[in-house]
Amino acid sequence: MEWLSDTLNIKTSGKGLYSFNDDINTKIEQWSVSQGMAFLFVQHTSASLVVNENYATSARRDMERFLERIAPEGESWQEHTLEGKDDSPAHLRTMITLSSLSIPIDNGKLNLGTWQGVFLAEHRQRGQRRNVLLRVLKVQ
Amino acid sequence: MEWLSDTLNIKTSGKGLYSFNDDINTKIEQWSVSQGMAFLFVQHTSASLVVNENYATSARRDMERFLERIAPEGESWQEHTLEGKDDSPAHLRTMITLSSLSIPIDNGKLNLGTWQGVFLAEHRQRGQRRNVLLRVLKVQ
Amino acid sequence: MEWLSDTLNIKTSGKGLYSFNDDINTKIEQWSVSQGMAFLFVQHTSASLVVNENYATSARRDMERFLERIAPEGESWQEHTLEGKDDSPAHLRTMITLSSLSIPIDNGKLNLGTWQGVFLAEHRQRGQRRNVLLRVLKVQ
Repeated sequence: MEWLSDTLNIKTSGKGLYSFNDDINTKIEQWSVSQGMAFLFVQHTSASLVVNENYATSARRDMERFLERIAPEGESWQEHTLEGKDDSPAHLRTMITLSSLSIPIDNGKLNLGTWQGVFLAEHRQRGQRRNVLLRVLKVQ
Repeated sequence: MEWLSDTLNIKTSGKGLYSFNDDINTKIEQWSVSQGMAFLFVQHTSASLVVNENYATSARRDMERFLERIAPEGESWQEHTLEGKDDSPAHLRTMITLSSLSIPIDNGKLNLGTWQGVFLAEHRQRGQRRNVLLRVLKVQ
Repeated sequence: MEWLSDTLNIKTSGKGLYSFNDDINTKIEQWSVSQGMAFLFVQHTSASLVVNENYATSARRDMERFLERIAPEGESWQEHTLEGKDDSPAHLRTMITLSSLSIPIDNGKLNLGTWQGVFLAEHRQRGQRRNVLLRVLKVQ
Protein backbone atom coordinates (compact mmCIF):
# COMPACT_ATOMS: atom_id res chain seq x y z
CA MET A 1 0.00 0.00 0.00
CA GLU A 2 1.11 3.51 -0.76
CA TRP A 3 0.31 6.90 0.80
CA LEU A 4 -0.29 9.92 -1.43
CA SER A 5 -0.96 13.49 -0.31
CA ASP A 6 -1.87 16.81 -1.77
CA THR A 7 -3.84 19.92 -0.88
CA LEU A 8 -6.73 20.99 -3.07
CA ASN A 9 -7.26 24.72 -3.25
CA ILE A 10 -10.85 25.67 -3.96
CA LYS A 11 -11.77 29.21 -4.89
CA THR A 12 -15.25 30.28 -3.82
CA SER A 13 -17.20 33.38 -4.80
CA GLY A 14 -19.30 33.63 -1.63
CA LYS A 15 -21.88 31.43 0.04
CA GLY A 16 -22.89 28.25 -1.70
CA LEU A 17 -22.05 24.66 -2.55
CA TYR A 18 -19.13 24.07 -4.95
CA SER A 19 -18.74 20.63 -6.50
CA PHE A 20 -15.12 19.44 -6.66
CA ASN A 21 -15.38 15.78 -7.71
CA ASP A 22 -13.28 16.53 -10.74
CA ASP A 23 -10.37 17.97 -8.76
CA ILE A 24 -10.22 14.77 -6.71
CA ASN A 25 -10.57 12.43 -9.68
CA THR A 26 -7.86 14.30 -11.57
CA LYS A 27 -5.42 13.66 -8.71
CA ILE A 28 -6.44 10.00 -8.49
CA GLU A 29 -5.73 9.64 -12.18
CA GLN A 30 -2.39 11.46 -11.97
CA TRP A 31 -1.37 9.14 -9.15
CA SER A 32 -2.54 6.07 -11.13
CA VAL A 33 -4.66 4.81 -8.26
CA SER A 34 -7.01 2.05 -9.32
CA GLN A 35 -8.30 0.97 -5.90
CA GLY A 36 -8.05 2.46 -2.43
CA MET A 37 -9.50 5.14 -0.18
CA ALA A 38 -9.68 8.92 -0.48
CA PHE A 39 -9.67 10.96 2.72
CA LEU A 40 -10.76 14.61 2.66
CA PHE A 41 -10.30 17.12 5.46
CA VAL A 42 -11.29 20.80 5.26
CA GLN A 43 -8.91 23.09 7.16
CA HIS A 44 -11.50 25.77 7.93
CA THR A 45 -14.15 26.60 10.53
CA SER A 46 -16.49 28.54 8.23
CA ALA A 47 -16.49 26.09 5.31
CA SER A 48 -17.33 22.39 5.32
CA LEU A 49 -17.95 19.27 3.23
CA VAL A 50 -21.23 17.92 1.88
CA VAL A 51 -22.01 14.84 -0.22
CA ASN A 52 -25.30 15.29 -2.02
CA GLU A 53 -27.24 15.61 -5.28
CA ASN A 54 -25.02 16.86 -8.10
CA TYR A 55 -27.53 16.75 -10.93
CA ALA A 56 -30.55 19.00 -10.33
CA THR A 57 -29.45 22.53 -9.46
CA SER A 58 -32.81 23.01 -7.69
CA ALA A 59 -31.66 20.50 -5.04
CA ARG A 60 -28.48 22.51 -4.51
CA ARG A 61 -30.44 25.75 -4.20
CA ASP A 62 -32.75 24.16 -1.59
CA MET A 63 -29.72 23.03 0.43
CA GLU A 64 -28.33 26.57 0.31
CA ARG A 65 -31.69 28.00 1.43
CA PHE A 66 -31.93 25.43 4.20
CA LEU A 67 -28.52 26.44 5.61
CA GLU A 68 -29.72 30.07 5.70
CA ARG A 69 -32.85 29.03 7.59
CA ILE A 70 -31.46 26.49 10.03
CA ALA A 71 -28.73 28.80 11.35
CA PRO A 72 -29.95 32.29 10.42
CA GLU A 73 -27.93 35.47 10.53
CA GLY A 74 -28.71 38.36 12.84
CA GLU A 75 -30.17 36.46 15.78
CA SER A 76 -30.00 38.40 19.03
CA TRP A 77 -28.33 35.52 20.94
CA GLN A 78 -25.34 35.44 18.55
CA GLU A 79 -22.30 36.86 20.25
CA HIS A 80 -19.49 36.01 17.82
CA THR A 81 -20.14 38.68 15.18
CA LEU A 82 -16.87 40.61 15.16
CA GLU A 83 -16.28 39.88 11.47
CA GLY A 84 -19.91 40.46 10.47
CA LYS A 85 -23.30 38.87 10.98
CA ASP A 86 -22.33 35.92 8.73
CA ASP A 87 -19.51 34.96 11.14
CA SER A 88 -21.29 32.99 13.85
CA PRO A 89 -23.78 31.27 11.48
CA ALA A 90 -20.80 30.14 9.36
CA HIS A 91 -19.42 28.21 12.34
CA LEU A 92 -22.86 26.77 13.14
CA ARG A 93 -23.42 25.59 9.56
CA THR A 94 -19.95 24.04 9.62
CA MET A 95 -20.84 22.20 12.83
CA ILE A 96 -23.92 20.44 11.39
CA THR A 97 -22.27 19.40 8.12
CA LEU A 98 -18.97 17.50 7.62
CA SER A 99 -15.33 18.28 8.35
CA SER A 100 -13.88 15.00 7.06
CA LEU A 101 -14.94 12.39 4.53
CA SER A 102 -13.67 8.97 3.48
CA ILE A 103 -14.71 7.75 0.03
CA PRO A 104 -13.73 4.45 -1.62
CA ILE A 105 -11.80 4.55 -4.89
CA ASP A 106 -12.55 1.82 -7.43
CA ASN A 107 -11.75 1.56 -11.13
CA GLY A 108 -9.55 4.64 -10.93
CA LYS A 109 -12.06 7.11 -9.49
CA LEU A 110 -14.26 7.97 -6.50
CA ASN A 111 -16.91 5.28 -6.19
CA LEU A 112 -19.82 7.71 -5.88
CA GLY A 113 -23.47 6.92 -6.44
CA THR A 114 -25.09 7.99 -9.71
CA TRP A 115 -26.37 11.34 -8.45
CA GLN A 116 -23.70 12.12 -5.87
CA GLY A 117 -21.28 15.00 -5.84
CA VAL A 118 -18.71 16.10 -3.26
CA PHE A 119 -19.18 19.78 -2.37
CA LEU A 120 -17.21 22.40 -0.56
CA ALA A 121 -19.79 24.43 1.36
CA GLU A 122 -18.72 28.05 1.66
CA HIS A 123 -20.49 29.70 4.60
CA ARG A 124 -18.99 33.20 4.42
CA GLN A 125 -20.48 36.05 2.42
CA ARG A 126 -17.24 36.90 0.63
CA GLY A 127 -15.33 34.58 -1.65
CA GLN A 128 -12.35 32.76 -0.15
CA ARG A 129 -9.62 30.32 -1.02
CA ARG A 130 -10.26 27.07 0.84
CA ASN A 131 -7.81 24.25 1.53
CA VAL A 132 -9.01 20.67 1.47
CA LEU A 133 -6.38 18.10 2.43
CA LEU A 134 -6.52 15.05 0.16
CA ARG A 135 -4.91 11.83 1.34
CA VAL A 136 -5.11 8.61 -0.63
CA LEU A 137 -4.35 5.10 0.57
CA LYS A 138 -3.46 3.33 -2.65
CA VAL A 139 -4.20 -0.38 -2.61
CA GLN A 140 -3.75 -0.95 -6.35
CA MET B 1 -2.17 -5.04 6.07
CA GLU B 2 -4.92 -6.22 3.79
CA TRP B 3 -7.77 -4.44 1.96
CA LEU B 4 -11.24 -6.01 1.84
CA SER B 5 -14.28 -4.69 0.02
CA ASP B 6 -17.93 -5.44 -0.34
CA THR B 7 -21.24 -3.64 -0.86
CA LEU B 8 -23.98 -4.02 1.70
CA ASN B 9 -27.47 -3.87 0.27
CA ILE B 10 -30.04 -2.63 2.75
CA LYS B 11 -33.74 -2.92 2.04
CA THR B 12 -35.86 -0.20 3.60
CA SER B 13 -39.65 -0.01 3.89
CA GLY B 14 -39.90 3.78 3.91
CA LYS B 15 -38.68 6.54 6.21
CA GLY B 16 -36.85 5.54 9.35
CA LEU B 17 -33.62 4.34 10.93
CA TYR B 18 -32.50 0.79 10.10
CA SER B 19 -29.79 -0.78 12.25
CA PHE B 20 -27.24 -2.80 10.25
CA ASN B 21 -24.51 -3.59 12.78
CA ASP B 22 -25.04 -7.26 12.18
CA ASP B 23 -24.49 -7.05 8.42
CA ILE B 24 -21.13 -5.40 9.03
CA ASN B 25 -20.05 -7.78 11.80
CA THR B 26 -20.99 -10.78 9.67
CA LYS B 27 -18.62 -9.58 6.93
CA ILE B 28 -15.86 -8.90 9.47
CA GLU B 29 -16.22 -12.44 10.75
CA GLN B 30 -16.28 -13.96 7.24
CA TRP B 31 -13.09 -12.09 6.43
CA SER B 32 -11.48 -13.20 9.74
CA VAL B 33 -10.55 -9.67 10.68
CA SER B 34 -9.49 -9.39 14.30
CA GLN B 35 -8.17 -5.80 14.30
CA GLY B 36 -8.44 -2.94 11.82
CA MET B 37 -10.76 -0.25 10.55
CA ALA B 38 -14.17 -0.38 8.88
CA PHE B 39 -15.07 2.37 6.42
CA LEU B 40 -18.68 2.92 5.40
CA PHE B 41 -19.91 5.10 2.55
CA VAL B 42 -23.54 5.47 1.49
CA GLN B 43 -23.99 5.88 -2.27
CA HIS B 44 -27.20 7.90 -2.06
CA THR B 45 -28.38 11.49 -1.66
CA SER B 46 -31.67 10.75 0.09
CA ALA B 47 -30.33 8.23 2.62
CA SER B 48 -27.52 8.64 5.13
CA LEU B 49 -25.66 7.15 8.10
CA VAL B 50 -26.29 7.66 11.80
CA VAL B 51 -24.54 6.24 14.87
CA ASN B 52 -26.83 6.40 17.86
CA GLU B 53 -28.82 4.61 20.57
CA ASN B 54 -29.68 1.05 19.54
CA TYR B 55 -31.45 -0.08 22.70
CA ALA B 56 -34.53 2.02 23.50
CA THR B 57 -36.87 2.23 20.52
CA SER B 58 -38.25 5.49 21.98
CA ALA B 59 -34.88 7.14 21.25
CA ARG B 60 -35.08 5.96 17.64
CA ARG B 61 -38.63 7.27 17.30
CA ASP B 62 -37.56 10.68 18.66
CA MET B 63 -34.74 10.83 16.11
CA GLU B 64 -37.22 10.04 13.33
CA ARG B 65 -39.61 12.75 14.60
CA PHE B 66 -36.75 15.23 14.85
CA LEU B 67 -35.77 14.68 11.21
CA GLU B 68 -39.39 15.40 10.20
CA ARG B 69 -39.36 18.64 12.21
CA ILE B 70 -35.92 20.00 11.40
CA ALA B 71 -36.37 19.73 7.64
CA PRO B 72 -40.13 19.59 7.15
CA GLU B 73 -41.97 18.67 4.00
CA GLY B 74 -44.16 21.06 2.06
CA GLU B 75 -42.39 24.33 2.84
CA SER B 76 -43.11 27.04 0.29
CA TRP B 77 -39.39 27.79 -0.32
CA GLN B 78 -38.66 24.21 -1.42
CA GLU B 79 -38.13 24.12 -5.16
CA HIS B 80 -36.83 20.58 -5.73
CA THR B 81 -40.11 18.66 -5.45
CA LEU B 82 -40.34 16.98 -8.83
CA GLU B 83 -40.47 13.50 -7.28
CA GLY B 84 -42.78 14.53 -4.44
CA LYS B 85 -42.77 16.69 -1.35
CA ASP B 86 -40.41 14.24 0.44
CA ASP B 87 -37.72 14.84 -2.23
CA SER B 88 -36.07 18.07 -1.11
CA PRO B 89 -36.31 17.31 2.65
CA ALA B 90 -34.61 13.95 1.97
CA HIS B 91 -31.56 15.78 0.61
CA LEU B 92 -31.58 18.23 3.54
CA ARG B 93 -31.75 15.43 6.13
CA THR B 94 -28.91 13.68 4.33
CA MET B 95 -26.86 16.89 4.52
CA ILE B 96 -27.07 17.22 8.32
CA THR B 97 -26.33 13.56 9.07
CA LEU B 98 -23.40 11.41 7.82
CA SER B 99 -22.30 10.19 4.41
CA SER B 100 -19.20 8.29 5.57
CA LEU B 101 -18.09 6.65 8.80
CA SER B 102 -14.88 5.08 10.06
CA ILE B 103 -15.21 2.64 12.96
CA PRO B 104 -12.39 0.69 14.66
CA ILE B 105 -12.52 -3.10 14.62
CA ASP B 106 -11.18 -4.90 17.68
CA ASN B 107 -11.59 -8.49 18.84
CA GLY B 108 -13.23 -9.43 15.58
CA LYS B 109 -16.06 -6.89 15.53
CA LEU B 110 -16.96 -3.19 15.39
CA ASN B 111 -15.71 -1.59 18.60
CA LEU B 112 -18.97 0.22 19.37
CA GLY B 113 -20.01 1.62 22.74
CA THR B 114 -22.53 -0.36 24.81
CA TRP B 115 -25.63 1.42 23.49
CA GLN B 116 -24.44 2.26 19.99
CA GLY B 117 -25.86 1.07 16.73
CA VAL B 118 -25.02 1.96 13.13
CA PHE B 119 -28.13 2.98 11.21
CA LEU B 120 -29.07 3.54 7.60
CA ALA B 121 -31.41 6.53 7.65
CA GLU B 122 -33.98 6.26 4.88
CA HIS B 123 -35.37 9.70 4.06
CA ARG B 124 -37.79 8.80 1.24
CA GLN B 125 -41.43 7.89 1.78
CA ARG B 126 -41.23 4.71 -0.27
CA GLY B 127 -39.01 1.73 0.52
CA GLN B 128 -35.76 1.47 -1.43
CA ARG B 129 -32.71 -0.73 -1.83
CA ARG B 130 -29.70 1.19 -0.51
CA ASN B 131 -26.02 0.50 -1.18
CA VAL B 132 -23.47 1.04 1.55
CA LEU B 133 -19.87 0.49 0.49
CA LEU B 134 -17.91 -1.40 3.15
CA ARG B 135 -14.12 -1.27 3.07
CA VAL B 136 -11.95 -2.86 5.73
CA LEU B 137 -8.29 -2.25 6.43
CA LYS B 138 -7.25 -5.48 8.09
CA VAL B 139 -4.38 -5.10 10.50
CA GLN B 140 -4.69 -8.53 12.11
CA MET C 1 2.82 1.25 7.56
CA GLU C 2 2.06 0.70 11.21
CA TRP C 3 -1.19 0.63 13.21
CA LEU C 4 -1.36 2.30 16.61
CA SER C 5 -4.32 2.32 18.99
CA ASP C 6 -5.34 3.89 22.24
CA THR C 7 -8.46 5.15 23.99
CA LEU C 8 -8.64 8.77 25.09
CA ASN C 9 -10.66 9.33 28.23
CA ILE C 10 -12.17 12.80 28.39
CA LYS C 11 -13.72 14.09 31.60
CA THR C 12 -16.56 16.55 31.09
CA SER C 13 -18.28 18.74 33.66
CA GLY C 14 -21.65 18.93 31.93
CA LYS C 15 -22.89 20.29 28.60
CA GLY C 16 -20.39 22.03 26.37
CA LEU C 17 -17.53 21.71 23.89
CA TYR C 18 -14.21 20.40 25.23
CA SER C 19 -11.11 20.82 23.08
CA PHE C 20 -8.81 17.80 23.10
CA ASN C 21 -6.27 18.53 20.36
CA ASP C 22 -3.50 18.27 22.91
CA ASP C 23 -4.45 14.75 24.04
CA ILE C 24 -4.25 13.56 20.43
CA ASN C 25 -1.00 15.35 19.65
CA THR C 26 0.61 14.00 22.81
CA LYS C 27 -0.11 10.44 21.65
CA ILE C 28 1.17 11.18 18.14
CA GLU C 29 4.40 12.45 19.65
CA GLN C 30 4.74 9.48 22.01
CA TRP C 31 4.28 7.15 19.04
CA SER C 32 6.83 9.14 16.98
CA VAL C 33 4.44 9.49 14.07
CA SER C 34 5.64 12.05 11.54
CA GLN C 35 3.11 11.40 8.76
CA GLY C 36 -0.13 9.44 8.58
CA MET C 37 -3.80 9.56 9.49
CA ALA C 38 -5.61 9.89 12.81
CA PHE C 39 -9.03 8.27 13.16
CA LEU C 40 -11.33 9.26 16.01
CA PHE C 41 -14.50 7.46 17.05
CA VAL C 42 -16.67 8.44 20.02
CA GLN C 43 -18.23 5.45 21.80
CA HIS C 44 -21.32 7.29 23.04
CA THR C 45 -24.80 8.26 21.91
CA SER C 46 -25.11 11.47 23.95
CA ALA C 47 -21.69 12.92 23.14
CA SER C 48 -20.15 13.63 19.75
CA LEU C 49 -17.26 15.20 17.83
CA VAL C 50 -16.99 18.70 16.39
CA VAL C 51 -14.19 20.42 14.46
CA ASN C 52 -14.50 24.17 14.77
CA GLU C 53 -13.11 27.50 15.95
CA ASN C 54 -10.70 27.02 18.86
CA TYR C 55 -9.64 30.63 19.35
CA ALA C 56 -12.56 32.96 20.20
CA THR C 57 -14.55 31.60 23.13
CA SER C 58 -17.56 33.59 21.85
CA ALA C 59 -17.72 31.23 18.85
CA ARG C 60 -17.76 28.25 21.20
CA ARG C 61 -20.52 29.79 23.29
CA ASP C 62 -22.63 30.43 20.16
CA MET C 63 -22.21 26.79 19.13
CA GLU C 64 -23.35 25.67 22.58
CA ARG C 65 -26.38 28.01 22.40
CA PHE C 66 -27.21 26.77 18.93
CA LEU C 67 -27.29 23.14 20.09
CA GLU C 68 -29.75 24.15 22.84
CA ARG C 69 -31.97 25.88 20.29
CA ILE C 70 -31.87 23.41 17.41
CA ALA C 71 -32.85 20.41 19.54
CA PRO C 72 -34.49 21.96 22.60
CA GLU C 73 -35.35 20.19 25.83
CA GLY C 74 -38.87 19.68 27.09
CA GLU C 75 -40.71 19.44 23.76
CA SER C 76 -44.04 17.66 24.03
CA TRP C 77 -43.23 15.24 21.18
CA GLN C 78 -40.12 13.88 22.95
CA GLU C 79 -40.81 10.40 24.24
CA HIS C 80 -37.35 9.20 25.33
CA THR C 81 -37.05 11.13 28.61
CA LEU C 82 -36.63 8.34 31.14
CA GLU C 83 -33.27 9.71 32.30
CA GLY C 84 -34.39 13.34 32.25
CA LYS C 85 -35.41 16.00 29.76
CA ASP C 86 -31.81 16.28 28.50
CA ASP C 87 -31.87 12.63 27.37
CA SER C 88 -33.64 12.76 24.01
CA PRO C 89 -32.08 16.10 22.92
CA ALA C 90 -28.63 14.60 23.68
CA HIS C 91 -29.25 11.88 21.08
CA LEU C 92 -30.59 14.42 18.57
CA ARG C 93 -27.56 16.71 18.98
CA THR C 94 -25.31 13.69 18.56
CA MET C 95 -27.13 12.82 15.33
CA ILE C 96 -26.48 16.19 13.64
CA THR C 97 -22.80 16.43 14.64
CA LEU C 98 -20.04 13.83 14.11
CA SER C 99 -19.41 10.32 15.42
CA SER C 100 -16.13 9.71 13.58
CA LEU C 101 -13.37 11.89 12.17
CA SER C 102 -10.28 11.31 10.04
CA ILE C 103 -7.55 13.94 10.24
CA PRO C 104 -4.20 13.92 8.41
CA ILE C 105 -1.00 13.92 10.45
CA ASP C 106 1.95 15.85 9.03
CA ASN C 107 5.16 17.03 10.64
CA GLY C 108 4.39 15.06 13.79
CA LYS C 109 0.98 16.51 14.59
CA LEU C 110 -2.63 16.88 13.43
CA ASN C 111 -2.62 19.00 10.27
CA LEU C 112 -5.38 21.36 11.43
CA GLY C 113 -6.12 24.79 10.02
CA THR C 114 -4.96 27.85 11.95
CA TRP C 115 -8.18 28.33 13.92
CA GLN C 116 -9.33 24.72 14.17
CA GLY C 117 -9.80 22.66 17.27
CA VAL C 118 -11.16 19.15 17.77
CA PHE C 119 -13.91 19.11 20.39
CA LEU C 120 -15.76 16.50 22.39
CA ALA C 121 -19.34 17.78 22.59
CA GLU C 122 -20.96 16.72 25.84
CA HIS C 123 -24.75 16.76 25.48
CA ARG C 124 -25.76 15.59 28.96
CA GLN C 125 -26.42 17.92 31.89
CA ARG C 126 -24.13 16.05 34.27
CA GLY C 127 -20.40 15.54 33.80
CA GLN C 128 -19.29 12.21 32.37
CA ARG C 129 -16.20 10.27 31.41
CA ARG C 130 -16.18 9.86 27.64
CA ASN C 131 -14.18 7.38 25.57
CA VAL C 132 -12.81 8.41 22.21
CA LEU C 133 -11.06 5.64 20.28
CA LEU C 134 -7.87 6.89 18.63
CA ARG C 135 -6.38 4.87 15.80
CA VAL C 136 -3.36 6.02 13.83
CA LEU C 137 -2.11 4.74 10.51
CA LYS C 138 1.58 5.59 10.65
CA VAL C 139 3.14 6.19 7.25
CA GLN C 140 6.39 7.69 8.54
